[in-house]
Parts: sequence; C-alpha cells; structure tokens
Amino acid sequence: MKNNNNSKAEGAKLKVIPLGGLEQIGMNITAFEYEDSIVVVDCGLSFPADDMLGIDLVIPDVSYLKNNIDKVKAFVITHGHEDHIGALPYVLREVNVPIYATRLTMGIIENKLIEHKLMDITERVVVSFGQTVNLGQFKVEFIKTNHSIVDAAALAIYSPEGVIVHTGDFKVDYTPVYGDAIDLQRFAEIGRKGVLALMCDSTNAERPGFTPSEKTVGKTFDNLFMEHKNSRIFVATFASNVDRVQQIINTAHKFGRKVTVEGRSMVNIIETAIRLECISVPEETLVDIDMIRNYPPDRQVIITTGSQGESMAALSRMANGTHRKLSVGAGDTVIFSSHPIPGNEKPVTKIINELLAKGAEVIFQDVHVSGHACQEEIKLIYTLIQPKFAIPAHGEYKHLKAQARIAEELGMDKENIFILSSGDVLELDRDSAKVAGCVPVGDILVDGLGVGDVGNVVLRDRQHLAEDGILIVVMCLDQLSGELVAGPDIVSRGFVFVKESEDLIEEARALVESTVEGYITRHISDWGRIKTGTKDVLSEFVWKKTKRRPMILPIIQEV
Amino acid sequence: MKNNNNSKAEGAKLKVIPLGGLEQIGMNITAFEYEDSIVVVDCGLSFPADDMLGIDLVIPDVSYLKNNIDKVKAFVITHGHEDHIGALPYVLREVNVPIYATRLTMGIIENKLIEHKLMDITERVVVSFGQTVNLGQFKVEFIKTNHSIVDAAALAIYSPEGVIVHTGDFKVDYTPVYGDAIDLQRFAEIGRKGVLALMCDSTNAERPGFTPSEKTVGKTFDNLFMEHKNSRIFVATFASNVDRVQQIINTAHKFGRKVTVEGRSMVNIIETAIRLECISVPEETLVDIDMIRNYPPDRQVIITTGSQGESMAALSRMANGTHRKLSVGAGDTVIFSSHPIPGNEKPVTKIINELLAKGAEVIFQDVHVSGHACQEEIKLIYTLIQPKFAIPAHGEYKHLKAQARIAEELGMDKENIFILSSGDVLELDRDSAKVAGCVPVGDILVDGLGVGDVGNVVLRDRQHLAEDGILIVVMCLDQLSGELVAGPDIVSRGFVFVKESEDLIEEARALVESTVEGYITRHISDWGRIKTGTKDVLSEFVWKKTKRRPMILPIIQEV
Repeated sequence: MKNNNNSKAEGAKLKVIPLGGLEQIGMNITAFEYEDSIVVVDCGLSFPADDMLGIDLVIPDVSYLKNNIDKVKAFVITHGHEDHIGALPYVLREVNVPIYATRLTMGIIENKLIEHKLMDITERVVVSFGQTVNLGQFKVEFIKTNHSIVDAAALAIYSPEGVIVHTGDFKVDYTPVYGDAIDLQRFAEIGRKGVLALMCDSTNAERPGFTPSEKTVGKTFDNLFMEHKNSRIFVATFASNVDRVQQIINTAHKFGRKVTVEGRSMVNIIETAIRLECISVPEETLVDIDMIRNYPPDRQVIITTGSQGESMAALSRMANGTHRKLSVGAGDTVIFSSHPIPGNEKPVTKIINELLAKGAEVIFQDVHVSGHACQEEIKLIYTLIQPKFAIPAHGEYKHLKAQARIAEELGMDKENIFILSSGDVLELDRDSAKVAGCVPVGDILVDGLGVGDVGNVVLRDRQHLAEDGILIVVMCLDQLSGELVAGPDIVSRGFVFVKESEDLIEEARALVESTVEGYITRHISDWGRIKTGTKDVLSEFVWKKTKRRPMILPIIQEV
Repeated sequence: MKNNNNSKAEGAKLKVIPLGGLEQIGMNITAFEYEDSIVVVDCGLSFPADDMLGIDLVIPDVSYLKNNIDKVKAFVITHGHEDHIGALPYVLREVNVPIYATRLTMGIIENKLIEHKLMDITERVVVSFGQTVNLGQFKVEFIKTNHSIVDAAALAIYSPEGVIVHTGDFKVDYTPVYGDAIDLQRFAEIGRKGVLALMCDSTNAERPGFTPSEKTVGKTFDNLFMEHKNSRIFVATFASNVDRVQQIINTAHKFGRKVTVEGRSMVNIIETAIRLECISVPEETLVDIDMIRNYPPDRQVIITTGSQGESMAALSRMANGTHRKLSVGAGDTVIFSSHPIPGNEKPVTKIINELLAKGAEVIFQDVHVSGHACQEEIKLIYTLIQPKFAIPAHGEYKHLKAQARIAEELGMDKENIFILSSGDVLELDRDSAKVAGCVPVGDILVDGLGVGDVGNVVLRDRQHLAEDGILIVVMCLDQLSGELVAGPDIVSRGFVFVKESEDLIEEARALVESTVEGYITRHISDWGRIKTGTKDVLSEFVWKKTKRRPMILPIIQEV
C-alpha cells in the first residue's frame, strides 16, 4: 500500500510511545506519532497490585496525550478485553477523540460508555476487517486475527516512514470456533512489501510450541458432558471468553441441555455478542435463570463467572449458599474452564475445596487453552512480516525478553530489537531506530469515584494501618495557661483486642500523660514538639512491649 | 510387635484427634489418645492467609492438650520443617512435655529452643530409625522415609487397639541423595502383621505417577553448570531443603567451584546439618561470604534464600542492590531450584523480572522435584500396609479427597475411609471406627510478641483500615454547659491525599459541626447519640462524594 496522501517531511520521525503495557500485564496503550498526528492503539486498565490496598482498578497516566490533545486523532482498539478498553471511560473525559473498532469490540465499549454516560459525547466508528481508515498522517488497516474473543484485530499502521504491524493479543487458530482463521495471507502480503517494525504479543513467548485450537476445548466439553450425562453441569469461565461460551452452548445443544448464563459481566457481554451476531445460539437453548429450574438437573447447564475464585462472583455465591437462585451441591459437576491468573491460585483453590466439600464433582484440569500465541506462532508471524525492527509488546520484562530471544534466533540483529519500558520514546525513520527520550507515564489509581486522589502517601498509610493498626492520642490544652484540660486519652483500632489489653493501654496512657506534663512544666507549648515527643515515647513503649509498630497519631485541641 | 506392657481395657477406645493440618496446608499436629495417655505427633505452624493482615504466623489452638495436660506424654516429631515443628516454641510454654525426634530434626528444633530460651526447661530425646519408644499406653516406632530433608520419619504408633501408621511427609526415593531409601521392608513387615489405620501424606494425591528421585535434580545441576561454566552461579532454594543444598555442593565441587551459603535461615539449617553430619561437604568447598569474592566469578556458587520472592530475603536484596556483600548483575546465572508455593507466583515473577532487567540469565523451570509422594507411591504404601481404615493426612480438602479416591480404587470400603476435619475425634477399636465428637481447635495468630491477642475484631478493623483508611472526628464539650468548646476537627489517614482534598474535608467538617450543634441546641448530651449521629451523617456524605467507606471514629473529650 502506498501512502499517497501522506507527505514525507524532511527530518521528521515516526515515534512509538508505549504509555502502558510494557513491563507489566494489562493497561495496554501505545501512542504512534508523526508530526501533527497521534494515533493511540488501545486504552486498557490493569488490576491493582497486592500492595495497592483498597484500589479498584488502575488506569494509565495520559498527560502526554492531554498535552498534545490537538494532535490526537483517534483511539484504535484491537479487541474488547478490559486490559485493552477498560480505561476508555476515564480517559475519554479528558481526551475525547473518536474510537475506531470492530463490531463486537465496539459493542462492548458502548456498554461501558452507556454506564458512564459518555455515549452522546463520544464519536464511534465501526470498522470491518480489511478496511483502512485515514487518521491524519496515518492510515490504519484492521486485519483479522484469532484470540479468545470474536473480532480481535491486528493493525497495520502506515506512516510516511513505513509500516508498523501491531498484532494486538492473538493466536493462530486454523479452526476457530466462530468466523475465519487469522488472515495470514494479508500478513504475508504486507510483509512482502516491507515492514518497518513489528509489535508482537509476548504473553506466551516463554512457552514452546503452538497454542492448541480453541476447538480442542470443544472436544473436551463433548467428552465431559458424555461422562457426566446424569448430573447438572456448571461451567465457570471468563466473562469475556465469548468463544468458550459458544462452545459450551454447542455441546449443551448436542446433549439436549438448556443453558443459562449467570454473573453480571458475563450476561452483559453475551447479550451484546448475541445482539451483534458474534455468537450463534440454537433456538430455545438459552433460558432465563428463573426458568432453568423447571428442567431436570441432567438437562441443565449453568455458565457462570467466578472461575478466578472472586468472592463476590456468582460461582462463589452458589457454592456458599448466598446466591438467590441457584446453589451447587451433591450430584453436580463443576467444570473450571480457565487457568488461575497468577496471584489467584489461592482463591481458586479455596472455592474448589468448598465445592468438593459440598459433594460436587470438580473438574479443573485441561479444560482451557490460551488465547495467546506460543513460540512457534510468534516465529510464524515474524517470518511472514520480516520486520526491520522488533518491538516486543504486551508483557512483563521476562516475556519481552523471551520474544527478543526468539527474534534473535530467527536471525534478527540484536541492535534492531527494542525492549521498551512504558514512557520510552522510540524514534524511527526508514533506516534507523533509537530510544530518544521519555514522556511521563504512571499508574492512576481508581478508588470508588476518586480517580488519582489516592497516591503513594495514602497507600503507604493504608499499608501501615493494615499491618499493625493505629493508636490515636487525643488531648485538650488550655489556650492561655497551656495546662492539660482533657486527656490524654488513647483510642486504638486494629492494634490489640482492647478488652484483653486494658493494662497495656492504661500503662501507655500514663506514660504519655507524664511526658506531656513534663513539657507543660517546662513551659514548652510548641504543639509540634509535644506531638513528636508523644509519638517517640509511645512508639518505643509499644515496640518494647509488643514488637509492633502501629501508626501513632497525636491530636491536640485547644480551648 | 506385641504390646506386652499395654493393657487392653474393656470398652476403652483409641482416639485420633487432628488439632490442625486437615483441610489446610501446614500447622500439622495430631493427638493420639488411649485412656490416660496422649501422644502428639508434630507441632507445626502455618503462614497467615491473605486476609490475616499484619500477622507473622499462625499456631494451633492446643486447649485440648492443656485441659488434658496430665495425660500428655510427649511430642513425637516426624521431620524438621516449619509446618511440623514451628509451633513448638509457643506450645511448649503451656504444654511442656518431652520431645522425641531423629538427629537432624532435633538439631533444628534445638536451634528454635535456644532462640526462645527454652532449652533448659525442655526434655529432648534423640531417636534412631528402627527404635521404639514407650510413651504410656503407646509405643512409637520411627521408620526411615525420604522427603526433601534428611532424617524424615514415618511413625508406627502401637496401641492396645492396634497399630496406626503415620507416614509424615514422604516420598519414595530409591536413590536418595544422602542416606538410605525409605524402609519399605519395614512398612511391609508391619503391614503383614495387621495395621488398624494408615494416615498417609496427601499433598500430591492429585498428581498421577511417581515423584522423580531427588538425584534427577543433581543431573540437571551438572548440565546447567556445564552450560554456564563461564559465569558466576546463584542458586535459590528453600532454606530447609537440605538434600538440594547437598547436590548443589556436589556439583560445585565437581566443577571446581567454591560455595557460600547466604540467608539467615539457610545458614542456620546448613550449619546444623554439617555439625550433625547430615550433609557431606568436600574439604575447602564451603567458604565464608566475605571470602567468595576472592575467587573469579566462574569459580563461585552462591546458594541463597529468597526463591519464593520474599522481599526481605537475600536474593531480593542481591537483586535490588541492598545486600551488603553481593549483588547480581550482567553475566551472572540465577537458578531457581524450587516451585512457587501457591500464592507466591507474583512475587517470584517480580524478582525474575528484576534479575533479567539487571542482565542476569535466569533459569526457573525443571530444576526442582517435589518431596511428596504422588499417586503411585501412595498406592505402594497402601499396598504394603493394607490398613483396615484410611485417614488421609496433610492437605486441603481436595487433597484428602484425592487420596480417598485412591484408597477406593485400591478396593477399600468407602465406609472405612475417613476425611476428617481438624478437631474431629475419631474413635477406633479393633473392628470399628467412627467420628464421635469434636474438640476445640483454631488458629492462634502470632503478631510480634503477641500470641492470640489479635483476633477477628482486630483483623476486621485492619481490613477496614486497609481498604479505605480512617476519618477521626475529635471534639471537646464543656462538662457543665454541654457547649462545644473545641472542634469538631477531622483528621484522616489512608483516605484521600488531604492536600488535594481540602474542600472535601472542610465540607465534611462543617456538616459534622452543624450536626453536633443540632444535638447541643436540643440539649442532647448523650455521647453515644452524638457519636452515632456524627458517624451516620459523615458516612453518608463520604459515600455520596467518593463511593468509599472509611472507618469513622468520633472521639469526644470533656473539660
């Protein structure tokens, strides 16, 4: 493809600026910049790290886009998963530019826009595979790929300096559940014409071989439904794994079972997929959750959220008896069609134990395949694309490094492979590439309605409070005389069980009192000194007695 | 073996009472009771669950032993791992009875007793394999097994009602690294004479096949040392995996490398193992950490703690540059000779990313074998022992259930297999067994010096503080007039970044003030009502503004 309407300016460079998603899982967002044009690929969230106490989700810092708002032409979205679209409702409030995406991807985005009351102010363009859109100095072509959700796209980003191919999340599935296989011919065609750089999914770059076709899971379902034909069947999977849900419905239909879908996020996505005809449901197979009980157990299938052991998800509630409509018990079969995401192993094990203890049979091995390309698939894409430069995308450092190693194995020059960090600015022209600076990036924490109002200070306090609780010392001084007129009193939370530690608290109180009296006697009325003194004396006492370091908070009032 | 000195009393029963370790990982402790005699097998700790904020470790509630202290004859310990011995220093303070254990097991226990100043008051008896000790109505025989630590023992517990065989943690290793293979002949002999019940390790009962010999890891080390003969080598493993350390030393010696051991827990255990001749170190192979730098990198091996990504362990500190003596960098090879324990996946990944980013090569796959028996080994033990009753031991419900399924497959009657919960009292005689009651059990939380002073109330507060922080409202009322003489002031921690939320806090303060003034105007001076009113009004305001629920703590003082 020629960039006829794109002008090649002297000395201008193409910039690739990942604003998230590198050296981490999730929060994928990358800016492509050429002169007056910026195109942003994806706008995802990530889930809070273990030390981000109380945080709901994390979105990228898009200051760079805000500061260059006149250049930003569009968000171009690869597929409808949270780590690629989840930050849109927050970012659009400040960077309100059109969104380009394929059918199902846009359907899922629109659900979010409705929820956040952003539909009216957001321009949306649904794109078909093979279609190319003009975005300032860029053209972007959408190429069919396979992933665990329908309508996933790779992008060919044409600039005056050359083409960058971004795979998005992908796998190579020759026998996909729904729709066509990945458009390898188009990858080859683009590769043949010459590609400046490839940004390829690194998620599974450590794994040898080929990711099996999603269809292999369909066969597993057939076998499992045959083996358990007398019991009610629950299948837990990711809400967003539309292909998986398709296969469960197929197998259920084959065995004459009715299907209900449970869990808010899953119901939302599946309803959207049905409306957009991205999932095909045989007539009278899907029934409402209130109706499923009218069928005998061996004609029921319940597809549910909660495969990661989330305590508030439908499966957990059905297991512990707090679900309003269904409960799992003896005679039921529960299939986990997912792997635990790293960090979720313990909650998943917990719910498996609960289900087993209720008498259910639990199947949790080998009923899942990944949606990401393994090493041989990555090699295939590199071999078709033959890029001049490689920029491994999506993943922690170890994943990026593993892909870099693959590129080297394939004969790429080490100097042409760039492991970037979020915020790096990679400048490219037809012949060269180099990291030429960086832009501000970071985690913006979302807690309830607050976006960015919880930062490091607040998190550090939460961590401190979580570890050892808090001791509050209140006292009231007379403004004129400086005398102690009330307190000091000590109130604690999260420190010790007070009823059984009255002596300890009283001893601490007396110690603080004599410390404060000491200051007053010496006519020291500087609150700062009194507070610091109180803190030091109390902190040392508590450490000696308990080897704990609760937060100590002296509060002085004046009358 | 005849129980010559044991009297068979009419109607007396043998009781098996797990006080921990069932339906959980860790905290293994089981009481065996017959008339006036109680023998306790193991006394382990467990590590705090994710929701036990700030807790250091968890020990079992041993009220049952305290209430029957006159009967308790001894602790009989199977091996020297924390989940089998870690609670001893706490429990011995209240249940001070003799400890019986094999050589290395006792060595490691004694390290703990010294640290807790309990050596003088604790009777200790070192037992050899094949030896039988008399403990009231019981005799206990120590049988050689294999595990990941030297001197692991199974126990044959002889009672007037019959023999119970308890495997402890074990695997079947025909070619162990140190010492003999598991004494299968003795298992067969005891089985031939008739065994009432088998308590067998369930940890790996879900895994088919045989656990490979520890020696296979030795071959892997040989290959890895050959491949990386030009680089300095770090090996991270569990402090307690004495056999693994032995193999690393063997391979290092083969390649003419010097070895140093780093990390407090590992140094302790290895020193003990060397002193007791449970590990054999070729002369001049081990060097002090201060000396290792005198050798070229390709002659160094550093064995270190931190394989679970623990942020304070030696490996983490060497990776992030905060270790005083060593740091990992480009050209180094780091071998993880361990699997992440469930729940530790994320920290392990974090440190791998850090090491890779420093330029080190990291090897973390296939350099570990388990220390626990897989399905075929469990079948072997059942087939040798031929127990009348099966009581799967060590593990969560799913592990116990998996072993029960194996026992059934081997032809055991379902009614003769008991999946117990901690606290269940299983009563057995020669012909029958049934759960006949329960005793109090539970988690005692250790936080700093405090044992048991942090309970559910404190944990709930810590959870609450961790999620959304705290808002403290202080005010001072005049005793006589009931007038507000100071405050209300609001102080927050862990809620919002106050400097950027001054308006919010001021609005909240004004709201509280008018609420309190309202009470005062109406001459309501009941502090309880004022506090509740303040809490309600503030809680609603904060929820509306932020969708958060910080802890709200009104404090009233009087002058």
